[in-house]
Amino acid sequence: MPATDPPMPRQGVYAKGVARRQEILDRSIEVFAARGSGRTSLRAIAREIGVTHAALSHYFGSLEELLVAVYEESSHHDEDSVPADTSPMTMMIESARANREVPGLVQLYSSLVATALEDDHPVAHAFASTRFANLRAELGDRIRQQQSDGRMRADVDPVAAAALVIAASDGLQTQWLLDDDAPQHEALAVLERLLREPGTDG
Amino acid sequence: MPATDPPMPRQGVYAKGVARRQEILDRSIEVFAARGSGRTSLRAIAREIGVTHAALSHYFGSLEELLVAVYEESSHHDEDSVPADTSPMTMMIESARANREVPGLVQLYSSLVATALEDDHPVAHAFASTRFANLRAELGDRIRQQQSDGRMRADVDPVAAAALVIAASDGLQTQWLLDDDAPQHEALAVLERLLREPGTDG
Repeated sequence: MPATDPPMPRQGVYAKGVARRQEILDRSIEVFAARGSGRTSLRAIAREIGVTHAALSHYFGSLEELLVAVYEESSHHDEDSVPADTSPMTMMIESARANREVPGLVQLYSSLVATALEDDHPVAHAFASTRFANLRAELGDRIRQQQSDGRMRADVDPVAAAALVIAASDGLQTQWLLDDDAPQHEALAVLERLLREPGTDG
Repeated sequence: MPATDPPMPRQGVYAKGVARRQEILDRSIEVFAARGSGRTSLRAIAREIGVTHAALSHYFGSLEELLVAVYEESSHHDEDSVPADTSPMTMMIESARANREVPGLVQLYSSLVATALEDDHPVAHAFASTRFANLRAELGDRIRQQQSDGRMRADVDPVAAAALVIAASDGLQTQWLLDDDAPQHEALAVLERLLREPGTDG
């Protein structure tokens, strides 16, 4: 066998590790869907999914790492498949609607963002700050495009408008989850309409 | 002494209890300001402020109750003193700015809201849903007034606009705390400008 061949046994071990990690992640997602993301520990989750604490922490070094992985795996990631002429607001509404279908996911997201704001939580902080930065850049590009197409008012900064749409979407979802009477759809519709108007230079 | 006189000893005990509760609350606020609101317990806080667990739980039945009391006591409550012609956006910005001066308060708030979204946290849920409902009603009244005065566009529902302003304010504060580059002020200025424009029927 030539020396350049891949080291098969090691790769086998690696592939097995990836499969095992995925298996543990899938079970964790089921556990979180059933119980929510309330105060817990890696040890308690290991018990619930029926693996040892050592096995779980081999794949996920901390509770935060596991929570981020559960969120990433469960959340709606079809942004790239959304047609370019879909309004950023519609995109956020669709994504929020899809995420609401996954039990516990919105709670998990809120809990990760709240944890990210505390000191000494680098994994949650990296997750939340990266997510917001990427989303602002991505929505900002869409808004810029829609402004050139005359679909959105051109007198607002695309990235500022993106930050506003993201904040409104997150905040209104929270208000609505706490209280069915919160005017989530009405408020998003107001923002959509204001951003679609021709504007003072339109 | 007439029978109608207040029962002095009992009232003395009550007043002493109120003072003791306040003393414990003040110490808790110092502890939270120093350490943030990260995962903790009544027992750990009792140790940190130097009272027994029994004493602390006599005044605050659960960690959530203590956290809500700490937030209520520390947060900016000068809304009533704000002049009626102050824009709702300026009001939210001023309140957020004042709250940022209190270390740990914004983290505590985010953590309470995230907890409120989880199941089985009635105290946090009542706190957050009441806070949002009151704020929507109060800001909604201000917006209605400013609409009659011609200071805000009249073609948006006041309560929906209030929900939008609250969501944007909370969400942008979160983005900015995670990342100094997040365009918090620019985005709030966009919303303020859009809401101030005369509107289609103005």
